[in-house]
Amino acid sequence: MAEFSVDALGILTDAKSKAIYESVRDLPIVDYHCHLTARDIYEDKPFGNIAQMWLAADHYKWRLMRTRGVDEYYITGGASEREKFDRFVETVATAFGNPIYDWVRLELHAFFGVDDPVTPENADRIWTKCNEKIAAERLSPRKTIERARVEYIATTDDPCDDLAYHALLRDGGYAVKVAPSFRTDALVQFEAPDYAQYLDRLGRAAGVAIRDLDTFLQAIERRLDAFVEMGCKFSDIGTEGFPSAIGDAREAERTFLRIVEGQRADAQAYDALRGYLYVWLAKAYARRKIVMQLHVAVARNCNRAMLRACGRDSGFDCVGDPIDVARIRNVLNAANDDGLLPQTIVYTLNPTMYYPLTTLCGAFAGVRMGISWWFNDHKRGMAESLACIAELGHLLSLVGMLTDSRSFLSYTRHDYYRQIVCAFLAQNTPDGADRYALQAAYALCYGNAKAIVEDTL
Amino acid sequence: MAEFSVDALGILTDAKSKAIYESVRDLPIVDYHCHLTARDIYEDKPFGNIAQMWLAADHYKWRLMRTRGVDEYYITGGASEREKFDRFVETVATAFGNPIYDWVRLELHAFFGVDDPVTPENADRIWTKCNEKIAAERLSPRKTIERARVEYIATTDDPCDDLAYHALLRDGGYAVKVAPSFRTDALVQFEAPDYAQYLDRLGRAAGVAIRDLDTFLQAIERRLDAFVEMGCKFSDIGTEGFPSAIGDAREAERTFLRIVEGQRADAQAYDALRGYLYVWLAKAYARRKIVMQLHVAVARNCNRAMLRACGRDSGFDCVGDPIDVARIRNVLNAANDDGLLPQTIVYTLNPTMYYPLTTLCGAFAGVRMGISWWFNDHKRGMAESLACIAELGHLLSLVGMLTDSRSFLSYTRHDYYRQIVCAFLAQNTPDGADRYALQAAYALCYGNAKAIVEDTL
Amino acid sequence: MAEFSVDALGILTDAKSKAIYESVRDLPIVDYHCHLTARDIYEDKPFGNIAQMWLAADHYKWRLMRTRGVDEYYITGGASEREKFDRFVETVATAFGNPIYDWVRLELHAFFGVDDPVTPENADRIWTKCNEKIAAERLSPRKTIERARVEYIATTDDPCDDLAYHALLRDGGYAVKVAPSFRTDALVQFEAPDYAQYLDRLGRAAGVAIRDLDTFLQAIERRLDAFVEMGCKFSDIGTEGFPSAIGDAREAERTFLRIVEGQRADAQAYDALRGYLYVWLAKAYARRKIVMQLHVAVARNCNRAMLRACGRDSGFDCVGDPIDVARIRNVLNAANDDGLLPQTIVYTLNPTMYYPLTTLCGAFAGVRMGISWWFNDHKRGMAESLACIAELGHLLSLVGMLTDSRSFLSYTRHDYYRQIVCAFLAQNTPDGADRYALQAAYALCYGNAKAIVEDTL
Repeated sequence: MAEFSVDALGILTDAKSKAIYESVRDLPIVDYHCHLTARDIYEDKPFGNIAQMWLAADHYKWRLMRTRGVDEYYITGGASEREKFDRFVETVATAFGNPIYDWVRLELHAFFGVDDPVTPENADRIWTKCNEKIAAERLSPRKTIERARVEYIATTDDPCDDLAYHALLRDGGYAVKVAPSFRTDALVQFEAPDYAQYLDRLGRAAGVAIRDLDTFLQAIERRLDAFVEMGCKFSDIGTEGFPSAIGDAREAERTFLRIVEGQRADAQAYDALRGYLYVWLAKAYARRKIVMQLHVAVARNCNRAMLRACGRDSGFDCVGDPIDVARIRNVLNAANDDGLLPQTIVYTLNPTMYYPLTTLCGAFAGVRMGISWWFNDHKRGMAESLACIAELGHLLSLVGMLTDSRSFLSYTRHDYYRQIVCAFLAQNTPDGADRYALQAAYALCYGNAKAIVEDTL
Repeated sequence: MAEFSVDALGILTDAKSKAIYESVRDLPIVDYHCHLTARDIYEDKPFGNIAQMWLAADHYKWRLMRTRGVDEYYITGGASEREKFDRFVETVATAFGNPIYDWVRLELHAFFGVDDPVTPENADRIWTKCNEKIAAERLSPRKTIERARVEYIATTDDPCDDLAYHALLRDGGYAVKVAPSFRTDALVQFEAPDYAQYLDRLGRAAGVAIRDLDTFLQAIERRLDAFVEMGCKFSDIGTEGFPSAIGDAREAERTFLRIVEGQRADAQAYDALRGYLYVWLAKAYARRKIVMQLHVAVARNCNRAMLRACGRDSGFDCVGDPIDVARIRNVLNAANDDGLLPQTIVYTLNPTMYYPLTTLCGAFAGVRMGISWWFNDHKRGMAESLACIAELGHLLSLVGMLTDSRSFLSYTRHDYYRQIVCAFLAQNTPDGADRYALQAAYALCYGNAKAIVEDTL
Repeated sequence: MAEFSVDALGILTDAKSKAIYESVRDLPIVDYHCHLTARDIYEDKPFGNIAQMWLAADHYKWRLMRTRGVDEYYITGGASEREKFDRFVETVATAFGNPIYDWVRLELHAFFGVDDPVTPENADRIWTKCNEKIAAERLSPRKTIERARVEYIATTDDPCDDLAYHALLRDGGYAVKVAPSFRTDALVQFEAPDYAQYLDRLGRAAGVAIRDLDTFLQAIERRLDAFVEMGCKFSDIGTEGFPSAIGDAREAERTFLRIVEGQRADAQAYDALRGYLYVWLAKAYARRKIVMQLHVAVARNCNRAMLRACGRDSGFDCVGDPIDVARIRNVLNAANDDGLLPQTIVYTLNPTMYYPLTTLCGAFAGVRMGISWWFNDHKRGMAESLACIAELGHLLSLVGMLTDSRSFLSYTRHDYYRQIVCAFLAQNTPDGADRYALQAAYALCYGNAKAIVEDTL
């Protein structure tokens, strides 16, 4: 069995790219956006086996199995962990071109010292070796974080969250900074059937009786300040759609009152209120030096029957139709006109938006395109993302990689990204520019992410 | 003159891809979607000359000549066959990057043993050699089918078609299975000026007096059953647009009654009726294990003056603006909610839809992206199509190649596709995975198409 | 210090592409669309220094600096020329993948004989050498035109322009043909606050009192004839949006009357009038053998605050959301139905439109896709543009390169394009086709542009 090496991924194909990669491969990780929870990190429960680590919650892998025709029984159903593992291994063996094909090899190598290709004939060996390792090392969230040299984690949290586990981590002197991010998805889903309950929770969390728009905004501000208190540097939103209008304060008040009174408003009124709130939030972030993250063009829970069967975040979200970039421009302009546009990172799930969106970002100081997101996090997708940012503006405007992940093993995606960055730099730097290529590699793999966390980017 | 070889196309550039290709190059062909007619196959009239074979009906070639500035007189006009042939050869000589540049070389090599580049100085020689071969071998539809090792052909037929030639082929014991596909384009074009006559034809073909929605659906079911009787495994639709709404039964009944009574309805009502029918058809297909094919984002007959001059299917269809993928989702959900979603293959002419559409397909069991279609059937387009399917789901979810063609020579496109598949696999399989690469190549070049025809995919 | 060579750009990577390039590198330039002014060419004032030549007016470079985080003070603000130059050099040093990274090297090499990489440690040397050269040679607009072997320049001019400088150039016997292009952007911006003043200027320029649609069209025709008199071969339009409707004459008259009377109309009425005018202009061009250029999918002045601070054309234009191609089809059909469709070149800033738009062009005789425009003028973008044109029609339908530039140094972009064309040809021509590859290279790099100027394409 051949030793696994970076050559196996086919990304670093020449001496120049490998040399650049050597300079960044061991840098620490600043993971400024993920879906790990402070609670899991705090509790630090050892993992049970490789099936749990790979398959208990990772909808990327579930989707891959489904598209291979695996029965749901072996995915989210009643099959045993070993059965699920076996079906997953069978699925991966021919998943050529899918990033999971590469990711699992990186994960096996980095965390388990296993270099066998993921194929049915190696399934027993991989199962045994990984589980021995997990048991022997009592592998746990913090151990994976440590091994991956992570120095900063921004979790994703609802404004109602009390951040108790973040506080425990901080007060416990945990060496890795674990900061919350202010995720406002639930806040703007006025049409949700349980929105009234959400407002109740928000009011209680903030200690504010929400009666109207004013008290609503007060509650948000209090929660935001509580987040900042706990080290929050990032906000985020990732709902479907993007406001088609920006309501003025009076319009927003009126619509919000209807909501509070349990009446319905029409779709346009909700959207105008949402637009108002996006701008208000942007300015609230700017005042607190919080980075605003916008995730756009996602279509959630596309299979209605499976939503009923499996719930949300089960692998039925899709790339959305493109969003009209003019809508995003309106929100940026409204905040910018008041001199209160925060540092902003925009991500889109639909790569057909890269050109209008990247140029739009380039028209506002401190607004940046994020790296390729989710479905786009494969070799071709990351390379395209880097190319667009470089072609339409300056490569070094990119903050860098994040995992956006629910799995502690997925820190290897930083390694994957670093390889792709270095290949891109090798292809786009003439021989005399090595010093600048190294400088760029450092910035893109670590320096910029660290700087944005420290307000120096 | 150099012997033509696969190297000439520049697709298989390394030993690994060539080795994979060797394992699939001679596999039979399952052509599960084309526009050849059962009548032409049954009658099996020998071809007259190479100009007829290339230029009598192939709008791909007409378009190429037009974009080179060739006068219509030499395309669909009164010029002699040799004159048309000469202008075509001149056009091809510099058509670098167009798939026809490659296709004609493959066709000359495979069917005529001619390896000369297609250039004016070789025109005489190509003309003579091909025509000698056509005469000497009495080259005919069935001879090309045989030579290309085709074992299954799904033609494309209107529900009104009596399938007489399919019956003659079956009863005559023709070794190649020639099955009809149920193409419902005319069925849903309620606004067409001759729709009343179409309903008449449908009613007669089905032996049903169409008076209302109920009898309309009865007529469709009878025809569908007659198609199934004749071996039909596939349906298809390829109209412009995609229903923006799904009407309920009552709404559909009301609109259809207006149509039967010769009154007009508004565009939204037609669209809701169309949506109703799409869902109803999907469920009818599911009950009969018929594969539903959706072809979307085509703009038909874009040049009004040339439509009057040359008629339909003359090379004036275009890639359409992207369709809102949410519309397709609604139809899939409506059928799926009733547990009656058939195996489905979705094709789009607009590659900007690949990402939202491929992920949507991956959210429904048995729904798959089709391979790149029509204008996208070139090297870069097929490679992109394969990459998207692989990146966003599982490569082996792809059924495989089809010709979608009106020309008996175009079976060589399967060879073209096979080369591209093997190049893709070679690039995306680490060295240890050869066995799985071969397994994937077999599935994508033959196995999956055979399986879907046999209900085992 | 290594001598700069074409190898440095990484485009011509094999002997075949270099051989093709050798055959076209020294051909003259027909620059059939740019934003240089006849006045600057006529006055021919020597340049002051390299900072002026690079940074005084080039919003491409301003945008690059902004996306690197450079303060506006060093871009359009009060910093000294040397300070601005230094910041620009710092910006370029790591602008890997941006075309400016390549362009500045080409410019330094071609006009100043400077081969140093553009990095801070070379800044002094580049500053000194360039400025010495500028002084020693009294480098001026005409000198750069001469050195770049330009033989034809089509400037971009408002219909109100009196073309006095074009006349002076012609009457002065200037060897390079400098012809105006008829740019109708201001003509169709009915909603602009200063549109009444614009009509006044147009009326005075044409010697027509504009009272209604009829006199408006008369004024346009007179100006168009004056342009033709001065050698005009091209028209152009590059406004946001594209008419969603084509009003009939009566509708257009009514709306125009409201405008003349200082009343407002609704957005749809303006758009229908604009549609009417687009068609009317197309036919006016066809009658005069003027090539119609359409530039679509641009979003202008996206940052409101910076528009107030810096004015138009300052680097805040963006790639627009895609335009519905069906709108463009409607205009082409309307002119074509009357047998008066001019030679047309369509450019889009949004590459997601390439497929529908290129196929649409291929459905009308004499309608062509333009080469990649503005933000798309990088290696990958030009290669994609060439590939789309080749895949969907005939490569030789492309007219060729233009600079679209405001900088006299940017003729080097023709060289950049030529390298990319030759690389494309080398990749897409089998070895036996060299003669045709050379023929294609000549057509794409010079022959076709010359022919369209001479009405022979």
